[in-house]
Amino acid sequence: MPRYYALVEYDGSAYYGFQRQREGQPTIQAELESALGHVGHRPIAITGAGRTDSGVHALGQVITFNVEWQHGSEALQRALNANLPADIAILQLNEVSSTFHPRFDARRRTYAYYVYNAAVRSPLRQQRSWHVLRPLDVKGMNQAAAHLIGVHDFATFGQPPQGENSVREVFTAGWQGPKDELLVFSITANAFLYRMVRSLVGSLKLVGEGAWTVEDFVAALQARDRSRSGAPAPAHGLYLVSVAYDSEEMA
Amino acid sequence: MPRYYALVEYDGSAYYGFQRQREGQPTIQAELESALGHVGHRPIAITGAGRTDSGVHALGQVITFNVEWQHGSEALQRALNANLPADIAILQLNEVSSTFHPRFDARRRTYAYYVYNAAVRSPLRQQRSWHVLRPLDVKGMNQAAAHLIGVHDFATFGQPPQGENSVREVFTAGWQGPKDELLVFSITANAFLYRMVRSLVGSLKLVGEGAWTVEDFVAALQARDRSRSGAPAPAHGLYLVSVAYDSEEMA
Repeated sequence: MPRYYALVEYDGSAYYGFQRQREGQPTIQAELESALGHVGHRPIAITGAGRTDSGVHALGQVITFNVEWQHGSEALQRALNANLPADIAILQLNEVSSTFHPRFDARRRTYAYYVYNAAVRSPLRQQRSWHVLRPLDVKGMNQAAAHLIGVHDFATFGQPPQGENSVREVFTAGWQGPKDELLVFSITANAFLYRMVRSLVGSLKLVGEGAWTVEDFVAALQARDRSRSGAPAPAHGLYLVSVAYDSEEMA
Repeated sequence: MPRYYALVEYDGSAYYGFQRQREGQPTIQAELESALGHVGHRPIAITGAGRTDSGVHALGQVITFNVEWQHGSEALQRALNANLPADIAILQLNEVSSTFHPRFDARRRTYAYYVYNAAVRSPLRQQRSWHVLRPLDVKGMNQAAAHLIGVHDFATFGQPPQGENSVREVFTAGWQGPKDELLVFSITANAFLYRMVRSLVGSLKLVGEGAWTVEDFVAALQARDRSRSGAPAPAHGLYLVSVAYDSEEMA
């Protein structure tokens, strides 16, 4: 049976995260499998590149699934989008190698976190960014973020899946803005620990507010102690932007 | 009793427009008056600069109200925001002349309309823009929009309030983008007819798709016949951006 790769965008506001939960709790995976079931006339399981938390959004989640389909990948994409709710859409869909795995073959993941840094909350930005009232020192946050780059044990900032260690390689990490009072933190790594981006943003915000120095941030990183992290930033500012693969894995 | 001027942002998705409706239908005005009633300990009516339709958003609606308040305008703004739902916020609040009227004294209003022009819908943009699948010819839409500038009878594109004619003066009108597949139509006029911006956008979209020529658009404008308009664009792409006054009216 042919395997397909699909790029998925979603607004996570209404869902209990990506991964299927028990009956009655809406998840992205359950919606995607329900649409596939309608189109493929049988239950079809999907595999995702990453398990985003409740409320987290995605601009480029990657999923795979196997399905018998005779009408070409464009028609399959249209049929799935017609069966998905308005807050989930398949942006791209292609046939892929039957050995391709969206999680194990991923080489780099990029997340973005949006902070709305203004004295008054913004109704039109509230569901998509974290409102931080006090002016943040972007330069200080970037000095701290620069210490993330490289291979480190990130145990302070998240938990690994069972059986894995907490060493990860961060390729890029930094803040852009403010633009229209929005600050955007972007980070690319080989993989992330559970809650890692939100814990990093929560800790970098302490630097931006002056509650932590850059040295405090570095000491927290080096402590490899989960209790040394700042409180995690809320889910609704976080976006899974993209997942990158070696092209030969997909052929 | 002192009069206050407030700048209001809202996400109109959950409301039956700005103007108070009958009991049980949530409106922006009802929410603002409810917050004011809590803070001022008595029923207080507000006056708005413009009556946005059901689903229309605002970045800078202007309202006025009279209230006895001893603690300064900053504390009043904070108290009101604490009593408003997350999708409505007061961005700015000042005392204003007791003769100032937000609608009658307005000299210019600016609206923006967001079109998401892409082959596949976007879950993260769906509530805030109109998804148009077919590629739009921005140059053609701008050629047509240029004909709006000046004093014209806009009867084709909207209805005047009772007792008014349908002549309005448009100061600027044009499209920007695409940027990240978003097109933004901005228009500034002394005042607008009911449904005017949405009817203009719906008609300009026909030009952008090639269903109308620029000449068809001009002929529709000159016909002064409501039945010659394109179908109005949906409410959820429309934003009241700002209302401008002569500074002496406010002093």
